[in-house]
Amino acid sequence: MIYAKAYGITKFRKNDDSIYQLAVEAAVDLIKRFEIDKREIDGIIIATSSDEPYIASIVSEMIGIEPKIAYKHEQICSSGSSAIASAYAYIRSDLCNNILIIGVDKHDTSGKRLDWDGSRGEFKHPAHWAALYAKMYMKRFNVKEEQLALVAVKNRKNSIGNKYAYFQDSISIEDVLNSRVIVEPIKLYECSYSCDGAAAILLSNKPDEKPVKVIGIGAKSLGASISSINNFIRIESTRFAAKEAYDMAKIDAKKIDVAEVHDAFTICEVLAYEDLGFIEKGEGGKMVEKRDEIVKINSRGGLLGRGHPIGATGIAQAVEIIAQLRGDYNNDYRIGLIHNIAAAGTTSNVIVMERDYG
Amino acid sequence: MIYAKAYGITKFRKNDDSIYQLAVEAAVDLIKRFEIDKREIDGIIIATSSDEPYIASIVSEMIGIEPKIAYKHEQICSSGSSAIASAYAYIRSDLCNNILIIGVDKHDTSGKRLDWDGSRGEFKHPAHWAALYAKMYMKRFNVKEEQLALVAVKNRKNSIGNKYAYFQDSISIEDVLNSRVIVEPIKLYECSYSCDGAAAILLSNKPDEKPVKVIGIGAKSLGASISSINNFIRIESTRFAAKEAYDMAKIDAKKIDVAEVHDAFTICEVLAYEDLGFIEKGEGGKMVEKRDEIVKINSRGGLLGRGHPIGATGIAQAVEIIAQLRGDYNNDYRIGLIHNIAAAGTTSNVIVMERDYG
Repeated sequence: MIYAKAYGITKFRKNDDSIYQLAVEAAVDLIKRFEIDKREIDGIIIATSSDEPYIASIVSEMIGIEPKIAYKHEQICSSGSSAIASAYAYIRSDLCNNILIIGVDKHDTSGKRLDWDGSRGEFKHPAHWAALYAKMYMKRFNVKEEQLALVAVKNRKNSIGNKYAYFQDSISIEDVLNSRVIVEPIKLYECSYSCDGAAAILLSNKPDEKPVKVIGIGAKSLGASISSINNFIRIESTRFAAKEAYDMAKIDAKKIDVAEVHDAFTICEVLAYEDLGFIEKGEGGKMVEKRDEIVKINSRGGLLGRGHPIGATGIAQAVEIIAQLRGDYNNDYRIGLIHNIAAAGTTSNVIVMERDYG
Repeated sequence: MIYAKAYGITKFRKNDDSIYQLAVEAAVDLIKRFEIDKREIDGIIIATSSDEPYIASIVSEMIGIEPKIAYKHEQICSSGSSAIASAYAYIRSDLCNNILIIGVDKHDTSGKRLDWDGSRGEFKHPAHWAALYAKMYMKRFNVKEEQLALVAVKNRKNSIGNKYAYFQDSISIEDVLNSRVIVEPIKLYECSYSCDGAAAILLSNKPDEKPVKVIGIGAKSLGASISSINNFIRIESTRFAAKEAYDMAKIDAKKIDVAEVHDAFTICEVLAYEDLGFIEKGEGGKMVEKRDEIVKINSRGGLLGRGHPIGATGIAQAVEIIAQLRGDYNNDYRIGLIHNIAAAGTTSNVIVMERDYG
């Protein structure tokens, strides 16, 4: 069995700190918070979209470990969750015992524009693909702008309780609707914010006193370009990844108590409700209004409230789920889910964790 | 059991082909050469030091696969072998069945200079660390320049038999000794050449008619900076990695029939003889003169003859070992080894494969 044993995180921010400083800050937070014996860390994976070569060994030296496995793992926005799958595999196959996974990025990473995709023409910013999804979905299921806006209002409100989140103020539906149009119908406050940040977790083959198990991993990459997407009312890769994760965990979506879903834009969270199987296709608009009755989603701010340092996001999601399942926010959840996607949903990863105590 | 099932490679060269073209060329060579059913490939890992984001999903779309796992794996010069360890882990842990690993780089990758290491002062080019090893080793064990030069002469001669190698001409000891001094005592012909190239292998949980098993994996990263190296007469990380690989394979060094070692510079091959355990420390000079009696090393040119496209090298080494163990060069070897290092030997990976037929 593989356990998600410890976590650390930095304040999400925007300043001159280097990517190395950010990574070390998250790692040191983890090591101190959980009193980890550094000598037991025999693997380090750095999830990042940044260009810095050899960063895993550099950070190893900075924090004072001499691991077997040390490499950089990149899958742009879903680098973090993809690295968790790798760490799981290394431990499960007995190549390592304890792997530190650090997700980290700066706001100006080259990973945040989709310059490589010629099929997008000049429309390289992710807001362009989000607009395609939003328009198609709203038209097909008669969903109103106010309903999508509510996702931003709720997640920004949730982030006020999370001192590591970038945003610490609440906004109203009117604020969202009146914010600058980025790409019709996507408005500024419906977009997550690319900032600096790092998050770290430790996977291990040994449990501690509040064990949280990794019980499901699903992943799918259907391509890279916008032209590999067949329709814009669902995130197809998420459906594949969720089915695989649920099958591996031997559960269905109804068992999930708490989830971190990839709300890079408001529409993404609505699609995630459906494509993760929490509700039927087309019911997303209604779910926005009373979602907490079904499953607790992005209750610490999500990407919209926390900020979105590309490679750090999947690990920050894992930090929240591990903390929830350990009861660190005084909740009583048993099963949690992480949903992390890349490049218009061409790739999705879904990870399921379960509390193994109490 | 995990099998190294198929391989593909490009001519190592220097031209305007993009990194995508190179990666696809190696993948298509593998798929055609071994008549692989693309639909069975459920993972792709791109080992590269290049900056291109989302390259694994881009290449997936270009070659027409829709894998579960798709990410970029970076550990500069040892990216390739490190990615093999990851692929092994994914399959061994039942997350994937068949993983395509492509190593690829262009000659102008940012990964080839060690700009991040302040402890090197202005001495950022890898030849500076090679010079430290060469000077210390030659002085301590009374090894002559002619003996080191012989490594280059032999590997360049071997590459003539390898049509994918960059160099296709032989050189003499005098040529090496008279070539331009890069950093005393390292001369031009003692340095591997950073060129363009790609290589691909397929790891699988199902054997074919000539199965080659992955039986040993060892890895160690002792740091990143030159200041993390305690002495320059051995590559300490190689000794850790080799011990781990031999232990996992339940063999000792004497069982190895054929090896690809990381001859980024002539001195590296000599140190590798010793630190992989083929001979005792200090005997490297003699081994240069009659190594083939002990174990066949870099018999297809090594980095010195084949060229060294950073992320491709570890996979190109694996291509050679798989081909040798399949008998594709009309040899009859049973156990082969890959030795791949990064940044002054701060990191080493050792992989052992065994023929499982005949």
